[in-house]
Amino acid sequence: MKDKISKREAIFYSHKMAQLSKALWKAIEKDWQEWIKPFKLNINEHHILWISYHLKGASISEISKYGVMHVSTAFNFSKKLEERGLLQFSKRENDKRNTYVELTEEGVELLEATLSEYNPDDNSVLRGVLPMTEMYGKLPEFLDLSALIKEIYGDEYMEILERSLESIETDSVINQPTDLETYKKQKPKSS
Amino acid sequence: MKDKISKREAIFYSHKMAQLSKALWKAIEKDWQEWIKPFKLNINEHHILWISYHLKGASISEISKYGVMHVSTAFNFSKKLEERGLLQFSKRENDKRNTYVELTEEGVELLEATLSEYNPDDNSVLRGVLPMTEMYGKLPEFLDLSALIKEIYGDEYMEILERSLESIETDSVINQPTDLETYKKQKPKSS
Repeated sequence: MKDKISKREAIFYSHKMAQLSKALWKAIEKDWQEWIKPFKLNINEHHILWISYHLKGASISEISKYGVMHVSTAFNFSKKLEERGLLQFSKRENDKRNTYVELTEEGVELLEATLSEYNPDDNSVLRGVLPMTEMYGKLPEFLDLSALIKEIYGDEYMEILERSLESIETDSVINQPTDLETYKKQKPKSS
Repeated sequence: MKDKISKREAIFYSHKMAQLSKALWKAIEKDWQEWIKPFKLNINEHHILWISYHLKGASISEISKYGVMHVSTAFNFSKKLEERGLLQFSKRENDKRNTYVELTEEGVELLEATLSEYNPDDNSVLRGVLPMTEMYGKLPEFLDLSALIKEIYGDEYMEILERSLESIETDSVINQPTDLETYKKQKPKSS
């Protein structure tokens, strides 16, 4: 099939995808920075805490893959978080080769505090999908985007994403009712 | 509608979008870096050349908006490109307030050389959409993604994207036949 795409089409298509993708990520990055600014964390640090929290501990290699950051970035920011007492390094009995990190009690508290402070109204993506959500009657699923990421990054990436999302489904901290929660009373989430 | 989304759903959704979006952009960024490395350009510099080329000159403000980079980033890298003799600054008669840049002959040559060197086979996105392209019989359009970016960035962003894409449609440099071009003989592009 690719052989049937002209070079012009290929440049056209990849330029369009580059523009859309850069624009989306920059909007998400900006919101993310604003969200965690009060906690004196940068995005990499918050991402590491988040991944370790949701995966109940993670190897540096998992953080690197799933966080889409270099291994050295994952390691160096994990070190900084360790210095702040937010996570600790360990080896696992059945896997001596990899370095694992897990959150300390302070790390869990800080990560949960960021989740409590999360305000959906400040989120460009959630605001941006509103018209589609009204049109479809549900949040748009971006299935093509998921399929593309699965092709590029492989099944493992999608599996970690699923595990991480399942964990959000059952987090007790997010269960705490908010002013928005009342609207969902009729359809309670299992936990 | 947003009022009917629980905080859990909002976190779930925005986390998923953040992961997909970061993964997509990082893959595109990596391919882009590899593509232009032989030309001693970074992505910001190439993006500025590309925008100025396709818009037949652009203001720093247009480059900043469309390139999704800070005005200072757009200005500083434009300065570097000027020092290399690849673009020049100017004011326009009907708009004295904004600084415009346009490519020099050397800038045009360099940008066109990068386009000539572009190899669709090295592109993760093009490889990644192959299964969908075979399934749909055409390249997936990511309409939800376009709709979302239009909501977040507004009509102006999409208009510049369209202008830039139209320019790719008519670039004579990309018209040069490649080994892939033969497959498209039956459906020639107007130019």
